[in-house]
Amino acid sequence: MADDRFHVYDTTLRDGAQQEGLNLTVADKLAVARHLDGLGVGFIEGGWPGANPKDTEFFRRARTELDLKHAQLAAFGATRRAGVKAADDPLVAALRESGAPVVTLVAKSHDRHVELALRTTLQENLAMIRDTVSHLRAGGQRVFLDAEHFFDGYKSNPAYALEVLRTAAEAGADVIALCDTNGGMLPDELAEIVHEAVQTSARVGIHCHDDTGCAVANTLAAVRAGATHVQGCANGYGERSGNANLFTVVANLQLKRGFDLVPAAALADMTRIAHAITEVTNVTPNSHAPYVGTSAFAHKAGLHASAIKVDPNLYQHIDPAAVGNDMRMLVSDMAGRASVELKGRELGYDLTPEHTKTLVERVKDLESRGFTFEAADASFELLLRDTVEGERKRHFEVESWRVIVERTKGGELVSEATVKLHAKGERIVATGEGNGPVNALDKAVRLGLEQLYPELAKLELVDFKVRILEGTHGSDAITRVLITSSDDTSEWATVGVAENIIDASWQALEQAVTYGLLRAGHKTT
Amino acid sequence: MADDRFHVYDTTLRDGAQQEGLNLTVADKLAVARHLDGLGVGFIEGGWPGANPKDTEFFRRARTELDLKHAQLAAFGATRRAGVKAADDPLVAALRESGAPVVTLVAKSHDRHVELALRTTLQENLAMIRDTVSHLRAGGQRVFLDAEHFFDGYKSNPAYALEVLRTAAEAGADVIALCDTNGGMLPDELAEIVHEAVQTSARVGIHCHDDTGCAVANTLAAVRAGATHVQGCANGYGERSGNANLFTVVANLQLKRGFDLVPAAALADMTRIAHAITEVTNVTPNSHAPYVGTSAFAHKAGLHASAIKVDPNLYQHIDPAAVGNDMRMLVSDMAGRASVELKGRELGYDLTPEHTKTLVERVKDLESRGFTFEAADASFELLLRDTVEGERKRHFEVESWRVIVERTKGGELVSEATVKLHAKGERIVATGEGNGPVNALDKAVRLGLEQLYPELAKLELVDFKVRILEGTHGSDAITRVLITSSDDTSEWATVGVAENIIDASWQALEQAVTYGLLRAGHKTT
Repeated sequence: MADDRFHVYDTTLRDGAQQEGLNLTVADKLAVARHLDGLGVGFIEGGWPGANPKDTEFFRRARTELDLKHAQLAAFGATRRAGVKAADDPLVAALRESGAPVVTLVAKSHDRHVELALRTTLQENLAMIRDTVSHLRAGGQRVFLDAEHFFDGYKSNPAYALEVLRTAAEAGADVIALCDTNGGMLPDELAEIVHEAVQTSARVGIHCHDDTGCAVANTLAAVRAGATHVQGCANGYGERSGNANLFTVVANLQLKRGFDLVPAAALADMTRIAHAITEVTNVTPNSHAPYVGTSAFAHKAGLHASAIKVDPNLYQHIDPAAVGNDMRMLVSDMAGRASVELKGRELGYDLTPEHTKTLVERVKDLESRGFTFEAADASFELLLRDTVEGERKRHFEVESWRVIVERTKGGELVSEATVKLHAKGERIVATGEGNGPVNALDKAVRLGLEQLYPELAKLELVDFKVRILEGTHGSDAITRVLITSSDDTSEWATVGVAENIIDASWQALEQAVTYGLLRAGHKTT
Repeated sequence: MADDRFHVYDTTLRDGAQQEGLNLTVADKLAVARHLDGLGVGFIEGGWPGANPKDTEFFRRARTELDLKHAQLAAFGATRRAGVKAADDPLVAALRESGAPVVTLVAKSHDRHVELALRTTLQENLAMIRDTVSHLRAGGQRVFLDAEHFFDGYKSNPAYALEVLRTAAEAGADVIALCDTNGGMLPDELAEIVHEAVQTSARVGIHCHDDTGCAVANTLAAVRAGATHVQGCANGYGERSGNANLFTVVANLQLKRGFDLVPAAALADMTRIAHAITEVTNVTPNSHAPYVGTSAFAHKAGLHASAIKVDPNLYQHIDPAAVGNDMRMLVSDMAGRASVELKGRELGYDLTPEHTKTLVERVKDLESRGFTFEAADASFELLLRDTVEGERKRHFEVESWRVIVERTKGGELVSEATVKLHAKGERIVATGEGNGPVNALDKAVRLGLEQLYPELAKLELVDFKVRILEGTHGSDAITRVLITSSDDTSEWATVGVAENIIDASWQALEQAVTYGLLRAGHKTT
């Protein structure tokens, strides 16, 4: 169990799930909870049982399917309705029956919201808080309170906002989390108000949104002002501009402020966990995310690249290994020779100055035509090998290919690809069917080559990304396809660029297979 | 010309261009500069003339092709090399000859960097600063100094770091921008160091990176500590986790701290400008960006949706119109009835409770199968019309379609689509050729229908996005296609979901054409 002196409280499964485009199934929620527990957070808010059948189901399944090592589950819900006893409110009953050791109650702390949104009196709102908190406490659950719109409320009516905190604390709430619900606060003013709240109340927590781009800084400012409970979401998910990114908050506090929040080994796994969660949420990872983004320790400036050769720590604010990330050199037309040399060394090649020069020129030329090698290491390595070893014969030569996708009169959908290849002195004609054109092409190629290269059976196409490079010309634009492939042990990415999406996919596919064969130890003929 | 008392200094074209995946042509840079000038920034750093042929060209073309209303151009460069006079250094000459009214010199202020990266003495570094600043000042240019790694430098050797500032100021530099080059600072410590610098030097500026997620807050903290010059990049572009987002900084200072930085009318155009710049940079816009993101004022929580009906200002931190953005209600399975009603009203339909219920159920069902209506308003409106008006006959019925993409033995690439349709009592068979499968299908449909519906000539497919919904199953995964179409006056987005990318594209295309015909006033039969 995590230390109770300082709380790391995750609300990805409730407030994070409010993000546009994010939809989690119960199985997704269970998977995210396991990842968060692996990071060592103290509390995981699972959802709002009673208000939402999916969340009720989550808490039911969590009892048998979640074996949490560090974290405790929290059920989110509202204070009782006006004019009803907490004991008689079915939504409060659902919180009680959720089986969660912690209940986090949202309560209004802004006078105008009480009157306009809740449509009750300020006194009744206080009674709702008192009654609901004591009722749940009496049933043996720990109660936290989310003071909604606290900062705007404090600015509108400070006495009432603080009275809400006092009421909740007196009724037995352990934590009062001050919520910047609209996300409009800046750190200086926020810190002053937190300071007032800390004087008044029980343990104070902080819950920020990123509408001013200051969610992380606001959270840190609140901690400095005395808050000992931080709320946030994995990868900064959340409505509008998102919630405070809990990963950034934890890394900042632990690596730069000396807090001991999660085990160091778990922190060193944070990059993997952050990406594993994006696999579940199916939200494209933010490559620029602090600490865990794929670009977070990537350098392309030529100026930096030369200095990094001297001492990498000159150009990074922490050791990326502390969060499980890596320093990367990017190959790009801005980079020039120093980065290409470093990248070559990373791949195990000691490039001559002549090779470096040729390679820089080829990269510049190809990038100007829409290729990107930053995201396609395998394509870069193939280009590097071509440069160093001279243009080689490939493992196979392509004579032609054809893809047909058809919706028949009867409504049947057919995707069929035929490839004609030459390999090891043989001419191969193979046809594959698939659930789409690229899948059919992939199957045709592997069907054709597997007899000659049995290792291809292990090769799998694991990701396929499409980017239209000129957004204002519709389907006339250039298409870039990135394909990620894997065998048992590793993944690699290849790139194809063409006006035609199928042609671009073919290029990336051909390189993916070639690289897979090289990895399997097949020299080219 | 902008007020000189407080500087808004943009470095998108130089430091922002260090972002992974961002490559700007000279024409791109000129276009971005025009957008930034439209926003009313005071300075636009155009690049490093002399070090980079593209940047030399930018400054050459800027003289005749850029007609800036507010901004002044700044040329970026380094202090002279060690052991050479500034007057004899060709890189300094390139700055002089750039024609830029301002030169921003980067100089080392961290003792270890002087010794390890620059490989010269601390004294020679000061001489380089003194000599280069005075030389350029004597030539009539205004000089700013970027004190690189200033904060780490101050922590390593405060006396030397401050000596760098003093030297530059005495030699005639107008601004000393303190750079958190590694981006590792947090606001509290940064503010203390800025406070020291302000006591020592001429005008102090601030240049932050987002490696701790605090670039914006660090910038604000520096301003509070006395800095009167803020550097940043459009949309937070930049190396690693990016630079301070200049748009967020400007909106925070102007809307929340009373600074008068850009004209109010320009600020009210900021959302459009931010997106226009993404069109040039071809970087996918961050929908969660504070103030200007498409999600920045979007709400999907059912709880919020009901309150928003009472008073929108209860749930937004500023009036979105102040930055040219809009409040949006999202249609999503989390939303429920209130948001669907609001969305219906937005589209001009007053839904009965029964229609709302049916529509919520259909949206939930379709979203669980991978559709997204948040990003496809036209598809949602078609669904809404089907619900309200009953399933109608379409403008056209599809009998079958077929797409062939072929790379021939001769290397020729052919994309051909045939559609068989029924419309206005006729059977139509049409074949289109295109540079890709979707383009060929689009052409075939329009060729087939244009005789019956001449308005289709104006319809254009302007954007095509592909998302693979299950990232771990490669081409077996479900594909979601979003198509944006336009006529003369407006744009609309439609969505298709299928295992097969061509089938998904077809669905989106069929709806795009249907919606276009409805817009053109064609009732369905």
